[in-house]
Amino acid sequence: MIAEPRLVEVRKNVLKKNDICARTLRDRFQAAGVLVISLVSSPGSGKTAFLEKTLTCLRKDYRVAALVGDLATENDALRLARSQAPVKQITTGTLCHLEAAMVETALGDWDLSQLDFLFIENVGNLVCPSSYDLGEAVRLVLISVTEGEDKPLKYPTIFNSADVAVITKIDLAKAVEFDWTAAAASIQAVRPGMEVFKVSAKSGEGMEDFTKFVSARLTQMRAVPAV
Amino acid sequence: MIAEPRLVEVRKNVLKKNDICARTLRDRFQAAGVLVISLVSSPGSGKTAFLEKTLTCLRKDYRVAALVGDLATENDALRLARSQAPVKQITTGTLCHLEAAMVETALGDWDLSQLDFLFIENVGNLVCPSSYDLGEAVRLVLISVTEGEDKPLKYPTIFNSADVAVITKIDLAKAVEFDWTAAAASIQAVRPGMEVFKVSAKSGEGMEDFTKFVSARLTQMRAVPAV
Repeated sequence: MIAEPRLVEVRKNVLKKNDICARTLRDRFQAAGVLVISLVSSPGSGKTAFLEKTLTCLRKDYRVAALVGDLATENDALRLARSQAPVKQITTGTLCHLEAAMVETALGDWDLSQLDFLFIENVGNLVCPSSYDLGEAVRLVLISVTEGEDKPLKYPTIFNSADVAVITKIDLAKAVEFDWTAAAASIQAVRPGMEVFKVSAKSGEGMEDFTKFVSARLTQMRAVPAV
Repeated sequence: MIAEPRLVEVRKNVLKKNDICARTLRDRFQAAGVLVISLVSSPGSGKTAFLEKTLTCLRKDYRVAALVGDLATENDALRLARSQAPVKQITTGTLCHLEAAMVETALGDWDLSQLDFLFIENVGNLVCPSSYDLGEAVRLVLISVTEGEDKPLKYPTIFNSADVAVITKIDLAKAVEFDWTAAAASIQAVRPGMEVFKVSAKSGEGMEDFTKFVSARLTQMRAVPAV
């Protein structure tokens, strides 16, 4: 993002195009009855480890799949493939976020009606992904206990654009002297009432609460008939 | 950054303007005999803790100051002020990186000839800051042991645009089972021969090696007469 008047204009056009594409995707997801959940965070907040654990947990009872964005490498897709769920990597080159059109292209000929959950892991970036709707039903913002408690105050837009916060790597909370009260206050200051999950992909702590939450959201979505 | 032809053209113009401004800054820094060091990393990699420790260490023998960029809050400037060094916060709003003109504005009427070191802490972002020259002499890219060993492979551009890598939070290396060999291989794959420092702002481990390095760079810079 660059603060030049002409750029702002161009960016608005790109966003408009993205919004149209995202709306089409959202309708398609709704019609197929698949709950789409995206993940945003800094690089290294543990998106992939958390997603691998989530896919492994949910796979027992649901049909799950994932798309994963990165500037370079297919490392994350390879890691996620260990969960046995279908996974596709989106390599963005120098682009610092995913856009709806990339999701559409990556989906290819996947039959979405054969899925219960589709996860979309964004490029590691706490700024730019906030502006791009991917058609997801739920956007998760992840922060790890190793990052510091004031991240929501410093990156308010991404917290405002997300539906749910996930605090990761809680097994390290003691080692880094994580201040839970300060973290909760930061989140609530930026997004009052935001639901927060506390998880460790390593120990599995908190994963059950999270999977229960997404299962309930799936049931809720399917109870509302597609328009 | 958005992959649209028109945008690319606009972005080139912005970069050109930034490059001109950065060149002017670089000449000014060189003439004043101040070594300018910038820091880039993900949010939460420990830039501010590392910088606070660096300022505190260097302040004993040198005149140091810092500029610190963030989307919102003055938290980092307040933290850095504990080092007793002069610090100014640059608040970027929704902009995900610093630009040379912001540095120029923030410098205001500071007499640079009264400084030995000026540090510039960029917005937490491993993507966009790579494209913006700030006139710095040395660009540091920081990764914490909690982020994973493959970050250089996933964010090659920022490692290519940096001069030196700093691995932070090494006091947590055991707790997160950090693989030093894999990390070194990732860095060298992207930037062969890159110098790497390993530090803990908490324990102080590795700080002496780092401050010796920057002191040597200052001596070296001043040995070359300004053109």
